[in-house]
Amino acid sequence: MSSKKSIMDYETVALDDGKSALVIIDQTQLPYNTEILELTKQEDIWDAIYLLKVRGAPAIGVAAAIGIYLAAKEIKADSYDEFYQQFLKAKEYLASARPTAVNLFWALDRMDEVVKANQDKSVAEIKELLHKEAVEIKEEDIWVCKQIGEYGLSLVKPGDGLLTHCNAGQLATAKYGTATAPMYLGQERGYNFKIFADETRPLLQGARLTAYELHESGLDVTLICDNMSATVMKNGWVNAVFVGCDRVAANGDTANKIGTSVVATVAKRYNVPVYICAPTSTIDLNTKTGADIHIEQRPAEEVTEMWYKKRMAPDGVKVFNPAFDVTDNDLIAGIVTEYGIARAPYTESLKEIFAKKEAAKAAK
Amino acid sequence: MSSKKSIMDYETVALDDGKSALVIIDQTQLPYNTEILELTKQEDIWDAIYLLKVRGAPAIGVAAAIGIYLAAKEIKADSYDEFYQQFLKAKEYLASARPTAVNLFWALDRMDEVVKANQDKSVAEIKELLHKEAVEIKEEDIWVCKQIGEYGLSLVKPGDGLLTHCNAGQLATAKYGTATAPMYLGQERGYNFKIFADETRPLLQGARLTAYELHESGLDVTLICDNMSATVMKNGWVNAVFVGCDRVAANGDTANKIGTSVVATVAKRYNVPVYICAPTSTIDLNTKTGADIHIEQRPAEEVTEMWYKKRMAPDGVKVFNPAFDVTDNDLIAGIVTEYGIARAPYTESLKEIFAKKEAAKAAK
Repeated sequence: MSSKKSIMDYETVALDDGKSALVIIDQTQLPYNTEILELTKQEDIWDAIYLLKVRGAPAIGVAAAIGIYLAAKEIKADSYDEFYQQFLKAKEYLASARPTAVNLFWALDRMDEVVKANQDKSVAEIKELLHKEAVEIKEEDIWVCKQIGEYGLSLVKPGDGLLTHCNAGQLATAKYGTATAPMYLGQERGYNFKIFADETRPLLQGARLTAYELHESGLDVTLICDNMSATVMKNGWVNAVFVGCDRVAANGDTANKIGTSVVATVAKRYNVPVYICAPTSTIDLNTKTGADIHIEQRPAEEVTEMWYKKRMAPDGVKVFNPAFDVTDNDLIAGIVTEYGIARAPYTESLKEIFAKKEAAKAAK
Repeated sequence: MSSKKSIMDYETVALDDGKSALVIIDQTQLPYNTEILELTKQEDIWDAIYLLKVRGAPAIGVAAAIGIYLAAKEIKADSYDEFYQQFLKAKEYLASARPTAVNLFWALDRMDEVVKANQDKSVAEIKELLHKEAVEIKEEDIWVCKQIGEYGLSLVKPGDGLLTHCNAGQLATAKYGTATAPMYLGQERGYNFKIFADETRPLLQGARLTAYELHESGLDVTLICDNMSATVMKNGWVNAVFVGCDRVAANGDTANKIGTSVVATVAKRYNVPVYICAPTSTIDLNTKTGADIHIEQRPAEEVTEMWYKKRMAPDGVKVFNPAFDVTDNDLIAGIVTEYGIARAPYTESLKEIFAKKEAAKAAK
């Protein structure tokens, strides 16, 4: 039996205890092949992170947690000091795979804390606790996405047209994604959404990843070029926009993949609400407004030749290629977090979201 | 001496009387090679139109006029009837090169009228008159573009940032282009514009043609992806948008390359005026509003694989690929024609433009 499996039959990042393996979908093979990798060697896990076989901040965090657990499991040491020395070496090694990925460090540090907090325990017990922590990091990620999905789903109705930009999908997280979470939960409940995926130039994450994962999962997805958003909205085909985010400022201004603010501006004209799907980990109350967010510039070749058979622009022409843009808070109908939906004025509502988060932590 | 010539050293379409040749820039070679073709055989002229070596409605019209003149010049016949029979055969042949190109028929019919109106003249005299008409069709096209350029230039100032979408450039006309005419005229007068060219997915006319011709001509042009318009406008880098059009309705609604209405919507948010550069031949007072304009749908493969090394989207995914969109008149600051600039309300001002055109004709 080699019946084609849906991407939803897999998790993007998983731990196979029996095989002592980190199991991932190789994203560098998409959208051509759905190749599942079972990685047992630290070198292969390092490579997978370095070569973007696993990508997306939450997915990288989970992969790192599982990866360092697998490293720790193999450590042959009886004393805490010996164990911790080797653990730190393994941690340093994995951390070097992608030095700019904040979630990589966050996950590795969280695993490190477990070791440090349990110096009195045996090495076997510490390994057990690391297993528990890795599973918990992953379960938390799934919980966050699912909560965002539930809140997002409350904003739409069966049969709605939804538009998304870039990939804030299952492939970027352990499961569900953020912007796609309402779509997947809706599918489980027979909502029959009609989804439009912007291709998202220059890197085409929408065409390669979002269209792929939604299509593979059996959702009704239509790929469009980024400049077609006005047409589908004018035609009345879009009831809501769900996008992810890289950072949300205290006033609700949101940095996300380049073009998000274009979609939001067009949506405003056609009275289509724009919802930012934002785990609270992406909301930074210390960043006052979008103007305080630095926008990375990326190489011209991404625009002029990256995917092309031949270079698509004249030699020597200047290219401006910002990776992100900032969507002003007046274009945003709501910020959907795992602790509820923030509405304008965001300076107030985002603080309330964090208060809820603290209360939930305290209640644990 | 093989010093690199600027595109402005050539005309897009020209008649070389000495060589009895239609001279064109081979647009299928752009942006890689600037190859100038001297076409003397009717088969080669047919091929050039069929294979889009010459493209853009005005340029095709001029090429057809020159082409049919060259055919007529070669006709060995003394009697009018014999001459006209062979002329019609040549006309039919050229017309078959691109059966959907309205300007092709318009130009050939206009040449045909010359023959029919001069039955009393000798074949040699008719050939002379056809030469005159072909030159006139081309000179008229250049005059129209230059007028649009002058009116457009009156709307901006030296040092301004200008943004354009798709290619309504010199390459689509005999010279100057429509949306680019203010840019080239400004360059002649030392205006130092900073120009942004949208790449214009899916066919990338902005990257391949507009960025090419402006860059080759020594203008300061920066290529951006379509979804970066909000960023450059928010940064304050754009003072005006100039775009061409496929059809303008009586109320000013304008059909143009897909994405134009997205640019216009974003421009409105940032108070950047949008000017439609429209030869009166593209204004159709019989089309009441944009809703009456049929939008062509094009093949999915243009989005998913046309330019790519590999297919860029999952097999079987749906694609929506409209060729054009309609920019509502409230997003348009002015419609720049060869007889002046129409402003809202367009139902009135476009009629006035046509009255001026009629008056100019009558005064001739």
